[in-house]
Amino acid sequence: MTAMNPKLIALDWGTSSLRGFLMGANGAVLEQRGSPHGITALPEPGTAGFEAAFEALCGEWLDRWPALPVVAGGMVGSSQGWREAPYVRSPADVSRLAAEAMEVPTRRGLSILIAPGVLSHPSGGAPDVMRGEEIQIAGALRLHPQLAERGHFLMPGTHSKWVDVRDGRITGFETYMTGELFAVLCRHSLLGRLMPAEAAAPEVAEAAFTRGVEAARHSRPGDLAHQIFAARTLGLTGEMPAAALRDFLSGLLIGQEVLSALGHSAQADTPLALIGEEGLCRRYAGVLQRFGAVPALQLGNTAPAGLFHFAIAAGRVAAAGEPAR
Amino acid sequence: MTAMNPKLIALDWGTSSLRGFLMGANGAVLEQRGSPHGITALPEPGTAGFEAAFEALCGEWLDRWPALPVVAGGMVGSSQGWREAPYVRSPADVSRLAAEAMEVPTRRGLSILIAPGVLSHPSGGAPDVMRGEEIQIAGALRLHPQLAERGHFLMPGTHSKWVDVRDGRITGFETYMTGELFAVLCRHSLLGRLMPAEAAAPEVAEAAFTRGVEAARHSRPGDLAHQIFAARTLGLTGEMPAAALRDFLSGLLIGQEVLSALGHSAQADTPLALIGEEGLCRRYAGVLQRFGAVPALQLGNTAPAGLFHFAIAAGRVAAAGEPAR
Repeated sequence: MTAMNPKLIALDWGTSSLRGFLMGANGAVLEQRGSPHGITALPEPGTAGFEAAFEALCGEWLDRWPALPVVAGGMVGSSQGWREAPYVRSPADVSRLAAEAMEVPTRRGLSILIAPGVLSHPSGGAPDVMRGEEIQIAGALRLHPQLAERGHFLMPGTHSKWVDVRDGRITGFETYMTGELFAVLCRHSLLGRLMPAEAAAPEVAEAAFTRGVEAARHSRPGDLAHQIFAARTLGLTGEMPAAALRDFLSGLLIGQEVLSALGHSAQADTPLALIGEEGLCRRYAGVLQRFGAVPALQLGNTAPAGLFHFAIAAGRVAAAGEPAR
Repeated sequence: MTAMNPKLIALDWGTSSLRGFLMGANGAVLEQRGSPHGITALPEPGTAGFEAAFEALCGEWLDRWPALPVVAGGMVGSSQGWREAPYVRSPADVSRLAAEAMEVPTRRGLSILIAPGVLSHPSGGAPDVMRGEEIQIAGALRLHPQLAERGHFLMPGTHSKWVDVRDGRITGFETYMTGELFAVLCRHSLLGRLMPAEAAAPEVAEAAFTRGVEAARHSRPGDLAHQIFAARTLGLTGEMPAAALRDFLSGLLIGQEVLSALGHSAQADTPLALIGEEGLCRRYAGVLQRFGAVPALQLGNTAPAGLFHFAIAAGRVAAAGEPAR
């Protein structure tokens, strides 16, 4: 305890949760704390709510080390956040995030440096946005510098992101609403009515998931709204056990996402890295292999490393071997 | 009134509504009545609820003409209906529907003949089902016999159906959950949060709808879960007025459906007929034209004609020029 020499407090502040990391030299996580106070679940509304959530999470750390710099990433920088840090346009690297970061003062007198999100706007297409994932990418590049020259990143989830990196910069990305689509279809559509609460036996679930992936693999443009109806008819006709319909739908939606994203990515020789929750990444890795794409790496939560990288780029902590600016 | 000479009571009994038609020779609708007692909204549960809804709608007609035959189509024949009339497999024509129909007795002593639905199961694919639409098809073929030899039918809606007809038989069909997907995304997903209650000005709505259709037209397999995210980002970035995001999403989903369905239909020279609510059919017709497919016909509700056709096939009423069996 007496040997602890923290250099940074890093906050990963999302919609539904807040995580704080007390970090030492070289980005080691010395302590971490979680709180349910995501930006949509603050203890009170407005600025006072952000202050209170921050104080509850970090107060003890700051009582002990009052001069620690504090950085934050995620939805805390959105227009519904504590202070908006407007999106920077891709291509963007961590230095660009640092240059466009916003500061928000706190009651303690210190200020928190909030990272911006990134906006991509391919010509002729629609804009796309990320907020929080750019920090995960910064973390992945800090931990695995070999991916900085050329890397392809997949962060599966509610809103999956597929991100292209070139020379350390995010050059483009695409969001897939796969997880949310799955959730609203199960909870609010006719498809959910045949789905029981209990799960199928693992081998039955796996077979249904694979059937969904295979259906997706052979899909033609626009097929999705037709294909998902099979999550009803396979149940209605007794061709698939009701408990496995959810797995079939999951396979269909993940398969469609992978089919589309691999089709959009021109370079098959670019290493692909997965970032995210282990079980979900494993599920995606299996689908990717079925499509002939083998992930080179699978990473867990790279947000702490990313926030440390961001703090270095912003001159709030020293990189190894150099003093803080 | 004294001249009225009814031959049939026909019931179009769906999930959320019940419509009754008093029909004369040759299928003329003499009177029609509506009721909110769809099979999920009965006045009381179970068989008694079906009896009560039927009596409330048709009691007066039957008091006056007690010997009238009664036929019904739609969800009343489903497993949640009054009496299940199991699906018949395609290819299926109206004679097949009649041969596989089920009778349900009523308190009055008469029985109601309930039409089955149709199941299609392409080899190697998933099953698809319809219940109610086969009656609409039977109606369309009665009203427009030239479509019986070879016709392609689109019934847009919550669950759009695209139906192939050859030699008077339904040979195959595909369901697209387009309308339901639109509804759950607007009501229950993140996309709905940026959509205000008020509608956009007509020309703004039209431009947004067209932008959605055009995005769909250029989509590759699996793109949907990515493309719909633009209904958020176009709003976030101010590139599209919030009131038009709903129209953009509608154009995207309808465009995807049309792209897929036209791609699956091999015969470009088969006449395409639209059946359904006029405004929605017009919207689809515009999209079809943009994809180079011009609908040959646009029909309204063909259910009464279909139920009459079904009653003839079942020998419950006489076709013109022949006595009832």
